[in-house]
Amino acid sequence: MPYVNIKITDDGVTSKQKAELIKGVTDLLQKVLNKNPATTVVVIDEVPTDNWGIGGQQVTERKKNS
Amino acid sequence: MPYVNIKITDDGVTSKQKAELIKGVTDLLQKVLNKNPATTVVVIDEVPTDNWGIGGQQVTERKKNS
Amino acid sequence: MPYVNIKITDDGVTSKQKAELIKGVTDLLQKVLNKNPATTVVVIDEVPTDNWGIGGQQVTERKKNS
Amino acid sequence: MPYVNIKITDDGVTSKQKAELIKGVTDLLQKVLNKNPATTVVVIDEVPTDNWGIGGQQVTERKKNS
Amino acid sequence: MPYVNIKITDDGVTSKQKAELIKGVTDLLQKVLNKNPATTVVVIDEVPTDNWGIGGQQVTERKKNS
Amino acid sequence: MPYVNIKITDDGVTSKQKAELIKGVTDLLQKVLNKNPATTVVVIDEVPTDNWGIGGQQVTERKKNS
Repeated sequence: MPYVNIKITDDGVTSKQKAELIKGVTDLLQKVLNKNPATTVVVIDEVPTDNWGIGGQQVTERKKNS
Repeated sequence: MPYVNIKITDDGVTSKQKAELIKGVTDLLQKVLNKNPATTVVVIDEVPTDNWGIGGQQVTERKKNS
Repeated sequence: MPYVNIKITDDGVTSKQKAELIKGVTDLLQKVLNKNPATTVVVIDEVPTDNWGIGGQQVTERKKNS
Repeated sequence: MPYVNIKITDDGVTSKQKAELIKGVTDLLQKVLNKNPATTVVVIDEVPTDNWGIGGQQVTERKKNS
Repeated sequence: MPYVNIKITDDGVTSKQKAELIKGVTDLLQKVLNKNPATTVVVIDEVPTDNWGIGGQQVTERKKNS
Repeated sequence: MPYVNIKITDDGVTSKQKAELIKGVTDLLQKVLNKNPATTVVVIDEVPTDNWGIGGQQVTERKKNS
């Protein structure tokens, strides 16, 4: 019954990579806590780099400077 | 003052249906907990089926197999 | 498959009221969007009034002044 | 290490305004709680006005009537 | 820079199990998306079974009936 | 109408500090986006250090090693 929300920047994540994240998190919750995969929900949010800040700065800006 | 976040897959939900969800949840909180509708906030997130997993699998894949 | 998160202040909500919220939201999603109740997840977060702000002020303070 | 999620309606917020929000929230957490800006994460979600409800009504509708 | 929120029921999860979840999710994001573990944030919320609903029913009630 | 969720570790944040965060975020949204403070909602979640991970490790462990 767990609910997992993964937030990442929207830089070209493929459908196959999303499938791997969903499968990986669901397996992890079964292995560590014996949670039933059938009711484990995973939601992935892809966030524009303009909308994500770390260190007080937009990721968009950080990438320019790196 | 409640805050409600509804996450659903983005399969053609109409504006009218969204209005019904917002009205319905707001009414429910007033009926059950006597919450003031004026400050009840409802936010609906529509999530692509590639980004939603259940049973360790993307909803996109589940629909193909059903 | 919807996921609903309800945030309310922690002022003595009873287990019976929580059950009514869960039932009510699940029914609403079935009625409006034909969502399967079996996989509809509802999570209620009760937040201390010191941790909830509206109008730039803690709910704790607002209640004192009202 | 704080994580801040800001949800606003998607009515033409500029990249510069987003940068100001990210900088402002990060500075605030440093000033009030002495949190290290380097690991303060801010995520801004822009929500369509059809998907945001207050007072039991979509923001889209409220704007029409105001 | 990912942010992951894991919501589970509060039925005696140990600190060691939480450490395994945090390590596992962080490793997964590095393996699948090459995300830097140093800025991957994981937050676990433990939710009382009275506050978690599935199938229109509190988990507390479901456990009684199973 | 913005909704802001601040997640921080639960290491003795005072009610006064919470009030400053709520006031500060509300003012920021008014200054940057001209948002009405009366309907700006701020919710602070305090998370146990066992439940917060960064760098693949619980904050509890990181503090021991620092």
